[in-house]
Amino acid sequence: MIGFNNGNYVPISQITIPADSLAVNRGYGAYEFFGVHNGKPFYLDRHLQRFANSLKALRLYSNFFDGLEEIVIELIRLNPIPDFYLKLFVLPLNASNPEKMEGGIYIFPVVFPPFSALEFETGMPLISREYQRFLPEAKSTAYLAGQYWQQEIDLAKALDVLFHSHGLIFETSRGNVFMVKNGRIITPKNGILKGITRSVVIDLVRQKGLDFVEQEIKFTEILEADEVFVTSTTKEVMPIIRIDNVQIGNGKPGPTTKWIIEEFIRHKKKYCN
Amino acid sequence: MIGFNNGNYVPISQITIPADSLAVNRGYGAYEFFGVHNGKPFYLDRHLQRFANSLKALRLYSNFFDGLEEIVIELIRLNPIPDFYLKLFVLPLNASNPEKMEGGIYIFPVVFPPFSALEFETGMPLISREYQRFLPEAKSTAYLAGQYWQQEIDLAKALDVLFHSHGLIFETSRGNVFMVKNGRIITPKNGILKGITRSVVIDLVRQKGLDFVEQEIKFTEILEADEVFVTSTTKEVMPIIRIDNVQIGNGKPGPTTKWIIEEFIRHKKKYCN
Repeated sequence: MIGFNNGNYVPISQITIPADSLAVNRGYGAYEFFGVHNGKPFYLDRHLQRFANSLKALRLYSNFFDGLEEIVIELIRLNPIPDFYLKLFVLPLNASNPEKMEGGIYIFPVVFPPFSALEFETGMPLISREYQRFLPEAKSTAYLAGQYWQQEIDLAKALDVLFHSHGLIFETSRGNVFMVKNGRIITPKNGILKGITRSVVIDLVRQKGLDFVEQEIKFTEILEADEVFVTSTTKEVMPIIRIDNVQIGNGKPGPTTKWIIEEFIRHKKKYCN
Repeated sequence: MIGFNNGNYVPISQITIPADSLAVNRGYGAYEFFGVHNGKPFYLDRHLQRFANSLKALRLYSNFFDGLEEIVIELIRLNPIPDFYLKLFVLPLNASNPEKMEGGIYIFPVVFPPFSALEFETGMPLISREYQRFLPEAKSTAYLAGQYWQQEIDLAKALDVLFHSHGLIFETSRGNVFMVKNGRIITPKNGILKGITRSVVIDLVRQKGLDFVEQEIKFTEILEADEVFVTSTTKEVMPIIRIDNVQIGNGKPGPTTKWIIEEFIRHKKKYCN
């Protein structure tokens, strides 16, 4: 497959960086990730806007950033398969100026197997750990904690790890979390990376006129929710039926979650038609 | 200069890694760093022991690890300059097994200008930020926060940023911190990366029979210390004369710090003779 190597379209195996760059030495970089379905990028505008925000938060800039939409469209033309994802990085080229670091842009197409219909039908567990990401509003390459806990996630056959701190829940290592309680849909407002799938789900529930609010959620509250679900680009909308050893609701995906899953699939099909 | 590329001795410009490896994608990697003075590695045994601990904590392993001492000695032979540093990384080659990830070993010789005599004579300030590193006992490549605050460090003409959390101080982004109060030398015991320079300083103060203890230090306590200093491989023993806007002691390096600096220099000369 063909990727982008800070100015050139090349086979992805040719995209390498010096192992002593700040991207490795200091784990420093901005990251973005979105799906291409039926040859169409899903909410490219929102992803590029968030990527711009992440760069700003991380004090990075790139000379190629303004032409990024055209680069993405060219990559979709060069990789003529209907369904894949694009991983985008801006990685520091040097650090002589920590006030505004120049970054290189590197883009990789990747193909993932989708989650199975069974997983959406039966739902999945989460594990939880006390942790809060640094600079959560920026999507960065700093995933040490999430990657570290992958072993425990796999052992529990869980979807992901839910981060909580000072009694509040925030996000999973790679997704946003929602709960439903007495008909009200709630998701954390602050201390999180605001996901694009999260924003689409919020659009859908608002358009339908459902009772929805962004506010703090206590760890004890989410354990007593009627329904819980996680949103992300690869998971889309995944029902959560257990957190650690605590069953959520009746242990099955609830009606609100099921409705959102159906609406999301319908909306995505229309968007990428 | 010549480095080590997971099995081969090559010019360091040839040491590159795929930009979509876990080392970049997830900011995942073990790190080690030490000085070579007069052609001799300073406390190589302690650094390699700590590197082994970091790998274990990060669930990494490498087929080359057992031969690492010989590789370091060969790199010193291949780079015949008296004074430089070696950066060592173990970076994941894949993540099929998050329980035990295979890593590649990459080693880079680097030359840094030393801190000036004036900086040791007059001391330097620290800034402080609320933060605690994830998995602090492991030296990893996860330096996002420290690198992020480099702008504020530079603006304040400071040495580094001091991390504190829940009212306790832990470490700086790249060093350990000691305080002297009423003749007693104190440094944090837990929640830190245990530096090799820190361990050498502890040896020196214990050999001299000075009053020394490893224990929790409150942020409010260090601001009222008589003396503060930071230890690290490049800084060795650096007096701290201010934290944010608070002057430490009389704003000049104190007698205990000066004695430790002299002893450290003497010891290093002897060790690397």
